[in-house]
Amino acid sequence: MKRILVLNGPNLNRLGKREPGVYGHEDLASLEERLLAYGEERNVTVECRQSNHEGDLIDWIHEASDAWDGIVLNAGAFTHYSYAIRDAMASVNVPVIEVHISNIHAREAFRHHSVIAPVARGQIAGLGFKGYELGIEALLAE
Amino acid sequence: MKRILVLNGPNLNRLGKREPGVYGHEDLASLEERLLAYGEERNVTVECRQSNHEGDLIDWIHEASDAWDGIVLNAGAFTHYSYAIRDAMASVNVPVIEVHISNIHAREAFRHHSVIAPVARGQIAGLGFKGYELGIEALLAE
Amino acid sequence: MKRILVLNGPNLNRLGKREPGVYGHEDLASLEERLLAYGEERNVTVECRQSNHEGDLIDWIHEASDAWDGIVLNAGAFTHYSYAIRDAMASVNVPVIEVHISNIHAREAFRHHSVIAPVARGQIAGLGFKGYELGIEALLAE
Amino acid sequence: MKRILVLNGPNLNRLGKREPGVYGHEDLASLEERLLAYGEERNVTVECRQSNHEGDLIDWIHEASDAWDGIVLNAGAFTHYSYAIRDAMASVNVPVIEVHISNIHAREAFRHHSVIAPVARGQIAGLGFKGYELGIEALLAE
Amino acid sequence: MKRILVLNGPNLNRLGKREPGVYGHEDLASLEERLLAYGEERNVTVECRQSNHEGDLIDWIHEASDAWDGIVLNAGAFTHYSYAIRDAMASVNVPVIEVHISNIHAREAFRHHSVIAPVARGQIAGLGFKGYELGIEALLAE
Amino acid sequence: MKRILVLNGPNLNRLGKREPGVYGHEDLASLEERLLAYGEERNVTVECRQSNHEGDLIDWIHEASDAWDGIVLNAGAFTHYSYAIRDAMASVNVPVIEVHISNIHAREAFRHHSVIAPVARGQIAGLGFKGYELGIEALLAE
Amino acid sequence: MKRILVLNGPNLNRLGKREPGVYGHEDLASLEERLLAYGEERNVTVECRQSNHEGDLIDWIHEASDAWDGIVLNAGAFTHYSYAIRDAMASVNVPVIEVHISNIHAREAFRHHSVIAPVARGQIAGLGFKGYELGIEALLAE
Amino acid sequence: MKRILVLNGPNLNRLGKREPGVYGHEDLASLEERLLAYGEERNVTVECRQSNHEGDLIDWIHEASDAWDGIVLNAGAFTHYSYAIRDAMASVNVPVIEVHISNIHAREAFRHHSVIAPVARGQIAGLGFKGYELGIEALLAE
Amino acid sequence: MKRILVLNGPNLNRLGKREPGVYGHEDLASLEERLLAYGEERNVTVECRQSNHEGDLIDWIHEASDAWDGIVLNAGAFTHYSYAIRDAMASVNVPVIEVHISNIHAREAFRHHSVIAPVARGQIAGLGFKGYELGIEALLAE
Amino acid sequence: MKRILVLNGPNLNRLGKREPGVYGHEDLASLEERLLAYGEERNVTVECRQSNHEGDLIDWIHEASDAWDGIVLNAGAFTHYSYAIRDAMASVNVPVIEVHISNIHAREAFRHHSVIAPVARGQIAGLGFKGYELGIEALLAE
Amino acid sequence: MKRILVLNGPNLNRLGKREPGVYGHEDLASLEERLLAYGEERNVTVECRQSNHEGDLIDWIHEASDAWDGIVLNAGAFTHYSYAIRDAMASVNVPVIEVHISNIHAREAFRHHSVIAPVARGQIAGLGFKGYELGIEALLAE
Amino acid sequence: MKRILVLNGPNLNRLGKREPGVYGHEDLASLEERLLAYGEERNVTVECRQSNHEGDLIDWIHEASDAWDGIVLNAGAFTHYSYAIRDAMASVNVPVIEVHISNIHAREAFRHHSVIAPVARGQIAGLGFKGYELGIEALLAE
Repeated sequence: MKRILVLNGPNLNRLGKREPGVYGHEDLASLEERLLAYGEERNVTVECRQSNHEGDLIDWIHEASDAWDGIVLNAGAFTHYSYAIRDAMASVNVPVIEVHISNIHAREAFRHHSVIAPVARGQIAGLGFKGYELGIEALLAE
Repeated sequence: MKRILVLNGPNLNRLGKREPGVYGHEDLASLEERLLAYGEERNVTVECRQSNHEGDLIDWIHEASDAWDGIVLNAGAFTHYSYAIRDAMASVNVPVIEVHISNIHAREAFRHHSVIAPVARGQIAGLGFKGYELGIEALLAE
Repeated sequence: MKRILVLNGPNLNRLGKREPGVYGHEDLASLEERLLAYGEERNVTVECRQSNHEGDLIDWIHEASDAWDGIVLNAGAFTHYSYAIRDAMASVNVPVIEVHISNIHAREAFRHHSVIAPVARGQIAGLGFKGYELGIEALLAE
Repeated sequence: MKRILVLNGPNLNRLGKREPGVYGHEDLASLEERLLAYGEERNVTVECRQSNHEGDLIDWIHEASDAWDGIVLNAGAFTHYSYAIRDAMASVNVPVIEVHISNIHAREAFRHHSVIAPVARGQIAGLGFKGYELGIEALLAE
Repeated sequence: MKRILVLNGPNLNRLGKREPGVYGHEDLASLEERLLAYGEERNVTVECRQSNHEGDLIDWIHEASDAWDGIVLNAGAFTHYSYAIRDAMASVNVPVIEVHISNIHAREAFRHHSVIAPVARGQIAGLGFKGYELGIEALLAE
Repeated sequence: MKRILVLNGPNLNRLGKREPGVYGHEDLASLEERLLAYGEERNVTVECRQSNHEGDLIDWIHEASDAWDGIVLNAGAFTHYSYAIRDAMASVNVPVIEVHISNIHAREAFRHHSVIAPVARGQIAGLGFKGYELGIEALLAE
Repeated sequence: MKRILVLNGPNLNRLGKREPGVYGHEDLASLEERLLAYGEERNVTVECRQSNHEGDLIDWIHEASDAWDGIVLNAGAFTHYSYAIRDAMASVNVPVIEVHISNIHAREAFRHHSVIAPVARGQIAGLGFKGYELGIEALLAE
Repeated sequence: MKRILVLNGPNLNRLGKREPGVYGHEDLASLEERLLAYGEERNVTVECRQSNHEGDLIDWIHEASDAWDGIVLNAGAFTHYSYAIRDAMASVNVPVIEVHISNIHAREAFRHHSVIAPVARGQIAGLGFKGYELGIEALLAE
Repeated sequence: MKRILVLNGPNLNRLGKREPGVYGHEDLASLEERLLAYGEERNVTVECRQSNHEGDLIDWIHEASDAWDGIVLNAGAFTHYSYAIRDAMASVNVPVIEVHISNIHAREAFRHHSVIAPVARGQIAGLGFKGYELGIEALLAE
Repeated sequence: MKRILVLNGPNLNRLGKREPGVYGHEDLASLEERLLAYGEERNVTVECRQSNHEGDLIDWIHEASDAWDGIVLNAGAFTHYSYAIRDAMASVNVPVIEVHISNIHAREAFRHHSVIAPVARGQIAGLGFKGYELGIEALLAE
Repeated sequence: MKRILVLNGPNLNRLGKREPGVYGHEDLASLEERLLAYGEERNVTVECRQSNHEGDLIDWIHEASDAWDGIVLNAGAFTHYSYAIRDAMASVNVPVIEVHISNIHAREAFRHHSVIAPVARGQIAGLGFKGYELGIEALLAE
Repeated sequence: MKRILVLNGPNLNRLGKREPGVYGHEDLASLEERLLAYGEERNVTVECRQSNHEGDLIDWIHEASDAWDGIVLNAGAFTHYSYAIRDAMASVNVPVIEVHISNIHAREAFRHHSVIAPVARGQIAGLGFKGYELGIEALLAE
């Protein structure tokens, strides 16, 4: 049974309350429940974590190196400047799928560039909560 | 029954022969068969077309406006400069999912920027042939 | 009796349906009728063509070298990257007036720069369908 | 009877004497006479003013807000840096057509960018004195 | 009793009429009355001037060198290109507080950069008419 | 009685010891005492917090969404790269005034650009400790 | 007996008529005759094709993969933006020599950069029609 | 007897008081007296004018076209953005020598670029008041 | 007896496991043992700490201000964007030597620029674990 | 009998030993012998020189002005920054063919730009030692 | 009696023969004679040297430190990239006047920037051979 | 017994006299003596050379290929533009340590970029003369 770690970065704990026109009206709890349910349906262990602290995300990625089969990562705004998270991803032998709820390529210029993308397995953007499920799907297809 | 149009752009007819280290060893026929099979499994009409001519892709996108429920588009290298395809996408009321077999964000600098992404519904990159299936999945989830 | 060729580029066949907030509600047929009528009124032969294929526009510009007295060209999105159309314009001895329905200077950054403008006689932008008539007027004033 | 204000900016009082290869051999008085005549022909009030002082142009644009139906503006070199004139244009509810005698897109790089274009109704460039008439025509077509 | 000179630059005479969504519905006279009243309340001489002419602002800044204790300056669009005003500020021994009614950092890119800021004492932006009062406050706190 | 949260970011705990030529000789405790006193005087609840951890600032901004009427934020060097703090500000319905002790526009180039300014209500820079008081004043004027 | 395919891109059918100061007075037919004669002299099969359509060039490059020993390619203005032709070149196992009649490095800035050069075997520029012969020579020397 | 017009731009009326470390302790009157004396010594008519208004400088340059043999111009900060002054210089048939008291190339980046230099006969920078005399000398050597 | 603090930033706890082709096969424990031994040999107190949290590094640098004679700092990826660490270094009166195991100037472009270098005493890059010893050596030579 | 001077710049004396994967295994002596032989075969005088000193190359180019019919120049790394060699080429009336052994357009970014190309007759790159022969051929075809 | 060293850099030995439209028809010998004569007239020792070797210019500048009162330097194309000459100038306590025969600001973009100007006393450009005399004049005025 | 070659580039012969605030008061002879002494102490042959001529440095680096075990190179200002020295370093199989006396990253922008660093083993900057000793130390540790 595969084990997938879902990591959400800064401000994703504000889902539902945060700019609903961009991120939708459902909150983080709903997303996490949905993904757990999806995991059961697909017979895969899913665990969800969220932090606003860059260091936590780095620690969790390191931890995944020995214990998880894949990471679905929405690094939030860290996507655009955290070379430290990029290096964390490059330091582990676990595939990482980068997910964004909104279409980052259609928003402000600073969101068009992901510093973590070059070390991710792939990127899924603009497909809402569905994107996380597709990320899990992609990891299962490895 | 939903109708999904899968469009492949320039050089994708060379799949299997073209830089297999980047694009894999399977050819376009395999990809198209796989997507047709996937369509049947998901109970959705899938049609696949490929062209090396920018104008053909524009014509097909226009045509989709009345006849199809969604487009999965791998515009190949046109992704990086064809503002004409971008305008074609903006001129129709059909959702378009942009797909790339390889992780364009991990390759040459010119591939990091997609001129069509701002008018796509979303982007899936780096997940191989699986990415097309996820694109169909995303359109079904609309 | 002067002969004026009016060339419309990619996606202009979608006029009326395409982003009406930007391009208005009238379609290409209306525009062409209006220009033919204008031609009659001004006692000048007007012919209108449209294509989504860059190569067609190049062929037509070449053809104009011997057969037409002026070109009114709305190259659509090709305006912003088709150096091939620019070279076609430079290769003929026929004046070309560049026309844009919308004010390209007030839209996305990539639309601010026209690669064909340096070899056009002049540019008219932002004046809707009227701009084509003014283009014809300018050619008659040569 | 519509009222059109024609404003010429810096150095246009040197027309005829100034780089005739670029701007032609006719002087400002000729241009203004021609436009007055054109106004009579088209049954519209035309008034022409010229100044080398940025502040004068701003004052005149403000003044137009209550008293004129449209402005034809050749801001000369201010076109390329006067954000103050841009703000003046945005502060009035009168349409402004930007006109340039020469094809600014075919000259030095600094002339390719107009800081006032994004708040103009449209731009006409490269068509000589005829461009002013076309500008009046465009205002009448509103 | 301290003496504070309040200088408003181009287009601020259009307050109330000019883009009220950005600058509010009150006009320049209201602003100036409010500041005079504020001066009385705070026991400080306040004088207000406005011009659309860059040279006037320069002259007034020079004049302040001997006669005023501080300047509150909203240079309008000159903020973004008038190195001459910058040099005027650097040529006098009077502190200048730069004020902007709107949040210039949240608007068009060209408004993000102030060429006069490096020689101002400080900058207050985005706080509406209140910003002028805070500017006076800051000068009194010197 | 309004409630204002004052947040100081990285290295502001070094005030007084840190580059006194730039930031003055008073320490963080003095600043905080001064602001508490100012709050009492103005009849408003003021609470001050400081952290060198980006995640703490994000958590505190989130917390303010339900419990505070305004935030005065000096994000220190995070101002120039923390898109995560920017997103935190955008995710709450509380006005934020950005404050800088020194005139950031007169220092190193990297300090000229604030990534959080576009989502702040306004910015006050270069006015020393007084700037915080003006920030509170601005929030009270809402 | 080696087989060499000579491909000419957009506007090269205008040779002789097109800017003769830049490209000389001989036309495409002369060039092609000269190359056929050169092929006979060097005992190599030479075939020449020309198109103004990007898609045709891509199709022909693909076709060469199985049938030709080398390509001499003058992609005309496509040289400067057609990443699709670049990918076509990279998708075949046939050496391609890039040829330009004029010295592209001595002309407009946009002509200084070739997007296809990184996947060509080599580049010959500025040597007129002779450059095609040298390109054939280089392919024979492989 | 040759006639030389010496034009000083914005803030040069503050010489002596303005940043004496950069511009020296002598004032504009001293400079003008020195140049008049120099003119007498060299048997040439010298007239000096100064203005903080861009439009005045443009008017004076125009006026020189018929009445003066050369201009020594220190355009102050206008040097770095006044394309209108540049066009004024290009519109007259009088040689202009650009002079700067300080070494503009050793100061802030924005001072390194002169928009008027390309249409000046030559530039003299960094040589103090002496530079004006050398400018006159150069005009006499024509 | 001098006291040297050695600080390692994000992902350096992955040494030995992290991209061994770049960083070698020895782990952080080995590095720290080696440096402690080196300290004993050189008769200097060495203490080593590591964190993936930017805030921890800032706190430790502050702490060093009173208690340590020098810092050897490998800030990992924070090197390239943490202006907060830069400010921390500038806020203490302790010399800091910046060390990088790999030659950052020979890797990806984003690693070529260190935002902390301008406030470090010096930089040592590309010399593996030896670089830390040289850093201690340099501090002893102060 | 024509006289051709072949000049090799810095580090080409290391051919064979220098990065053989890029430049091949043959040394400079082999190249020079080959070119002398080629010269005899083509009945043209060929002389070869090499220097690591920019000044030598300049001196030799000057010398060629009176004594040689053409220069084949591989300026090595000077290609990318020696404007002095560019000026030397422009100062003589001898055609210069620029040759590069490797495909400089497929290597590091700094090698993509040749500062000497705009004053060369043409450029041949990526064709190994053969490129020198083609350069001679091109000079004979003048 | 003051001692002035006049240094000419690369390609200035080609004066008279080199692009006479830009540099005039007189040769280096004439220039040097003229400056020696000028020196006698002004009662100052003038010595002239020229080299195409950057190292020679550096050596001569060093030598001047003890033996000469000023340097007039035309560094030719080295002006635009020789940071080594810049450092040489900064390493001596002798004033250096930078001279250019042509108006470098009116020529190719790469000539607009002088890397040596920031450490020169001043710059004289575009005034032909006269510029050298003015340079001597400026040194005498120190 | 290892053999280390120490190469100093342009202007380092001016040490002690050259900007002592930046480079210290000791001269080149002192540095070289110190390094010879250090070599004896560490039982390694050290030889020191200096030149202001780029070509000499290239020749010496080539020479080292067969005769020396390592190079300590302070290329002075050549560091920032000499791609020829870079290629020389890449052409030999001897490790090179790049040394700078001052902290180049804390000085003018042009000094922040080293074109030779990507082919050096490592870089040591800002540690004064000590840096050379550390460079030797690093070579011994290979």
